[in-house]
Amino acid sequence: MINLMNDYNQAAHPRVLAAIEKLADRRYAGYGLDEECRAAAADIRTVFGCPDGDVHLMPGGTLTNLTAIAAFLRPHQAVIAPATAHIYVHETGAIEAVGHKILTASTEDGRLQPRQIEKRIEEQTDEHMAKPGLVYLSQSTEWGTVYRREELTALRDLCHRHGMVLFVDGARLGYALMSERCDMSPAEFAAIPDAFYIGGTKNGLLFGEALVIVNAALRQDFRYLIKQRGGLLAKGFLLGAQFRAIFEEDLYFCLAKTANQTAEKLTEGLKAKGYAFEVPTESNQVFPIVEAAALPRLEAAILFERWHVLTDQRVSIRFVTTWATTEAEISQVLDLM
Amino acid sequence: MINLMNDYNQAAHPRVLAAIEKLADRRYAGYGLDEECRAAAADIRTVFGCPDGDVHLMPGGTLTNLTAIAAFLRPHQAVIAPATAHIYVHETGAIEAVGHKILTASTEDGRLQPRQIEKRIEEQTDEHMAKPGLVYLSQSTEWGTVYRREELTALRDLCHRHGMVLFVDGARLGYALMSERCDMSPAEFAAIPDAFYIGGTKNGLLFGEALVIVNAALRQDFRYLIKQRGGLLAKGFLLGAQFRAIFEEDLYFCLAKTANQTAEKLTEGLKAKGYAFEVPTESNQVFPIVEAAALPRLEAAILFERWHVLTDQRVSIRFVTTWATTEAEISQVLDLM
Amino acid sequence: MINLMNDYNQAAHPRVLAAIEKLADRRYAGYGLDEECRAAAADIRTVFGCPDGDVHLMPGGTLTNLTAIAAFLRPHQAVIAPATAHIYVHETGAIEAVGHKILTASTEDGRLQPRQIEKRIEEQTDEHMAKPGLVYLSQSTEWGTVYRREELTALRDLCHRHGMVLFVDGARLGYALMSERCDMSPAEFAAIPDAFYIGGTKNGLLFGEALVIVNAALRQDFRYLIKQRGGLLAKGFLLGAQFRAIFEEDLYFCLAKTANQTAEKLTEGLKAKGYAFEVPTESNQVFPIVEAAALPRLEAAILFERWHVLTDQRVSIRFVTTWATTEAEISQVLDLM
Amino acid sequence: MINLMNDYNQAAHPRVLAAIEKLADRRYAGYGLDEECRAAAADIRTVFGCPDGDVHLMPGGTLTNLTAIAAFLRPHQAVIAPATAHIYVHETGAIEAVGHKILTASTEDGRLQPRQIEKRIEEQTDEHMAKPGLVYLSQSTEWGTVYRREELTALRDLCHRHGMVLFVDGARLGYALMSERCDMSPAEFAAIPDAFYIGGTKNGLLFGEALVIVNAALRQDFRYLIKQRGGLLAKGFLLGAQFRAIFEEDLYFCLAKTANQTAEKLTEGLKAKGYAFEVPTESNQVFPIVEAAALPRLEAAILFERWHVLTDQRVSIRFVTTWATTEAEISQVLDLM
Repeated sequence: MINLMNDYNQAAHPRVLAAIEKLADRRYAGYGLDEECRAAAADIRTVFGCPDGDVHLMPGGTLTNLTAIAAFLRPHQAVIAPATAHIYVHETGAIEAVGHKILTASTEDGRLQPRQIEKRIEEQTDEHMAKPGLVYLSQSTEWGTVYRREELTALRDLCHRHGMVLFVDGARLGYALMSERCDMSPAEFAAIPDAFYIGGTKNGLLFGEALVIVNAALRQDFRYLIKQRGGLLAKGFLLGAQFRAIFEEDLYFCLAKTANQTAEKLTEGLKAKGYAFEVPTESNQVFPIVEAAALPRLEAAILFERWHVLTDQRVSIRFVTTWATTEAEISQVLDLM
Repeated sequence: MINLMNDYNQAAHPRVLAAIEKLADRRYAGYGLDEECRAAAADIRTVFGCPDGDVHLMPGGTLTNLTAIAAFLRPHQAVIAPATAHIYVHETGAIEAVGHKILTASTEDGRLQPRQIEKRIEEQTDEHMAKPGLVYLSQSTEWGTVYRREELTALRDLCHRHGMVLFVDGARLGYALMSERCDMSPAEFAAIPDAFYIGGTKNGLLFGEALVIVNAALRQDFRYLIKQRGGLLAKGFLLGAQFRAIFEEDLYFCLAKTANQTAEKLTEGLKAKGYAFEVPTESNQVFPIVEAAALPRLEAAILFERWHVLTDQRVSIRFVTTWATTEAEISQVLDLM
Repeated sequence: MINLMNDYNQAAHPRVLAAIEKLADRRYAGYGLDEECRAAAADIRTVFGCPDGDVHLMPGGTLTNLTAIAAFLRPHQAVIAPATAHIYVHETGAIEAVGHKILTASTEDGRLQPRQIEKRIEEQTDEHMAKPGLVYLSQSTEWGTVYRREELTALRDLCHRHGMVLFVDGARLGYALMSERCDMSPAEFAAIPDAFYIGGTKNGLLFGEALVIVNAALRQDFRYLIKQRGGLLAKGFLLGAQFRAIFEEDLYFCLAKTANQTAEKLTEGLKAKGYAFEVPTESNQVFPIVEAAALPRLEAAILFERWHVLTDQRVSIRFVTTWATTEAEISQVLDLM
Repeated sequence: MINLMNDYNQAAHPRVLAAIEKLADRRYAGYGLDEECRAAAADIRTVFGCPDGDVHLMPGGTLTNLTAIAAFLRPHQAVIAPATAHIYVHETGAIEAVGHKILTASTEDGRLQPRQIEKRIEEQTDEHMAKPGLVYLSQSTEWGTVYRREELTALRDLCHRHGMVLFVDGARLGYALMSERCDMSPAEFAAIPDAFYIGGTKNGLLFGEALVIVNAALRQDFRYLIKQRGGLLAKGFLLGAQFRAIFEEDLYFCLAKTANQTAEKLTEGLKAKGYAFEVPTESNQVFPIVEAAALPRLEAAILFERWHVLTDQRVSIRFVTTWATTEAEISQVLDLM
């Protein structure tokens, strides 16, 4: 069975596993106050060119999202997000559970437009309505698409004009930054949002996301907020060691690049066979449109997600590649399609 | 200035004020444990034909909505509501602030259809999505429209088939039940939802809403939940006396009927002058479509709300009548239009 | 039956009722944006000498406490309060329900000491513990005792040294300021805390508390926070009219003074009969110690609360006076004791 | 430096690490719906003799506590816990942040007595007070002490008589069950509470706690609640593999037993040298009382926590042992003392 279901179906990259093993005989301070975490934070600040960034290593994405958003907002403030946003659709109301409304905008390809944000702001006219306080977006998006530098900058400027925070969910940040369509270096990216996180779980780590709070006004007491939501891992050094491993010699970006290239090959192969796509491939997610009748045959050989029912006969599906997806697998998939 | 802005712009009906004054020399037990509240609850149970209904008198609508919804749901459960719902649009994220997501459906005239609810339920496929637990609707709706008995019954049945609660916001329940289009007695209405409230603020009281919990499974410890959210009025007897006054000799329904009739006259007059309406008038709210150019002139003489910008030149506006709106005022409005 | 149970057992002072009646024929803007509320706010700013104070009229005490505290704190911050605090004991976990821990200190007479606050701050050493962010106290306290100017100032200074907010629950502020033991004018009092509220419910109003936010840093968007918690009364003008009435010609303070004097007479009478007190009488609450055996006889004629079981045979009880308590009632009580 | 600071200072037991490595080449379903998690749950049900227990593998203790408690309670319900409870003291108000008050009782050695619970229940007389809904205790306690079977059974019976849930925090459950003072098998223990968790982080795992919901009434939709709080690990198979490894051939209990024996040797050695203890040693935590003057010398060679300042000259300290603590380390510590 070929697994193109998602990018978190495998334990970790061998170098990450090796880094965990090397910890075995040592004793560490608890809760992230150890040398591994300090070194990982330093590496991240260097790679992302933000020498003052506040780095917090957290065990998972939902926890990072809810902790950061609850920390950054006052009770009456709302989040503006695309209607496809992970926090809106796939986190079981986690943001509402910490008290905040999410105002959504329908997007064409998962990317929020400034005009959509402005419209939401204009609609919330007075104190009878939740007040927009933060824009949430994902880089890459749920559709694998990638914001360009100018787009992100425009969104950030819009946020700041309205006293709002720009927060970027980077569960798949590596794939975004290594996308052929991306026109930013890690440091150029990191200079834009108020805060973002670097997803580890979906790119080679066992688990872990590195939240970077760039805007100094948002940093105060952040470790309290992590602990309160249950995100302060007792053995924080496990996260530190993994992030050190992945940011050594650019491993994080190499893995993402490999996955993107594999996705590109898959896309090219499918195009050659005449397939159309629900959205263009920009990173490690591919959304071909297939005949509904072909689904049983494909599902017998490949693990993937059905995406949208487009007509009675046509369905979009999602293939996700990772650093571990092989050329042989791609060939097999193309043979099957 | 003629005030057709809303139905809460005046203190109270004289008989309600008289009832408050009569309390002056007496001393009462606190927090609703007094004879006025007991008598009011008994009156309500009689009028609404629910001898076992649990009646709680509360100071306002938002507080009633958030207290009831938070009481009826577990943390992971969501509300399904029309996109125009008061709780979604006009309560500053109050439901999200007590932890619950609201899933909305766009309606034509404010009334939710069973198919829309089913669609929301189908979309929430698994534990990564908030689980629908309650349907919220208003009777009458934000558009002044009124659910028919068969419609409400179908919604209730649908809710119960899916283990969900049907909760009716009755801030304008009197207007709904006295609508020409309504085919239910108060008792027939009360037999349908799991819980509902009878709006006092918008129909003759100084303030106050009477929540009726019909479904016994939802009653436990409800006074704790009221107190926790700040809704247990120290001088509950003020609410008791007002509800007693309004349910004596059908005053509540008489006031609503008068307002509906006034709205009907206004509607007929406007029709005669060639006006179209954004939705048909079914209770005390009237939504004529006017030339944008006429707005300044109208606003100089009448207080009302601009509703929707329909085109560059046409705008819908909202007129709201109450028991106190006079025939003379309606004539003046018609002259002005 | 003589009612010394509490100070919220009667509708309102006649002049307050008269003020409500005078509203009857007028129409008002909703949600507190009316001339009555503006005038009341101006009166309060004048009486309390805080020309920049942000005044919000709210329907009840618990709602005021939970709205203000949730507005003033970030999620990880805790409240420090006396163990007898209304928010800790008698509000059904309302503060915890909006997310905040209350750290308590046992007091001798309901008044918090700086040393106790310092101890709580010292105990919360790091991010594994909620961080104290606000001190809550009542003036007068649950014991009827009254903070002196120097005491309050010391508490405020302590709060500010630690970056904390001082919030004063003034449900019985009138009684405190009119206490013989009080050494502050209203304006001198108002200059001390960051925010406080002036209780109406317990001193002559039908209902209503006036929150005054003195510290400008705490004011932003406060009406959003009120609306979100359900405290924005649709007919805000009812609150405005009442507060105007009560602050005309010092009525608020006259009523409180009368009640205090009555309590003093009761205290003197009881002392003369040899009674001891659990705490000294400082305002309108009196805590005599009685024989347990006498309770049935007293309870047959007087409504009051049993306070503490001190020994098998001795019990403290609470008598509360109001502006409406008569000399005849006091005489009768003294005869019965 | 000898590390007796805590039981989470080392990555994991070699067999746990080996289990993680074995996963490397395989692909798994996400979010705990994989064969590793299913096998681990089956192992746990067998070892703890609860064939119907609902097992959820979660990344950390605070997250498990807050998720379970918020799932089991309605909004107005409170937790009763010892004043030393981890959830009360060391989780930054996490339980309050999900809305619930904690009512505490001071204990002698960390163990809650039925009488203390009854007292809390009696004090909460009516709807003005949060209603006790759950008793939280730790096995072993924050003091390393261990509830006996009869004690736990009495607490459970008391809870059930009052309609309350008994929830046991088993962050150190292995140490408790392997204590010389423990008179229960794992299955005998598991038959008592409504829910408990088996701590992995503090006994040989990289991270992970296994929540077991024994009471079927508490199970509904629990995965939704985990996801909502951010505790549904994308790569749940990492937790599954670790728990399988630790419950193979009793490894979990062997490690705990070893640590307990080491603690016992340390205790005996300290007794022989004349040391007294703040509480008796019952598991892997040892609380000797030392001269304050000796602290600098000890802290130069050993990592441990200062516990309580008992007098000007005497301080209790905490030594924690693990499976990895060596006899040589114990000898060194005894030489230093």
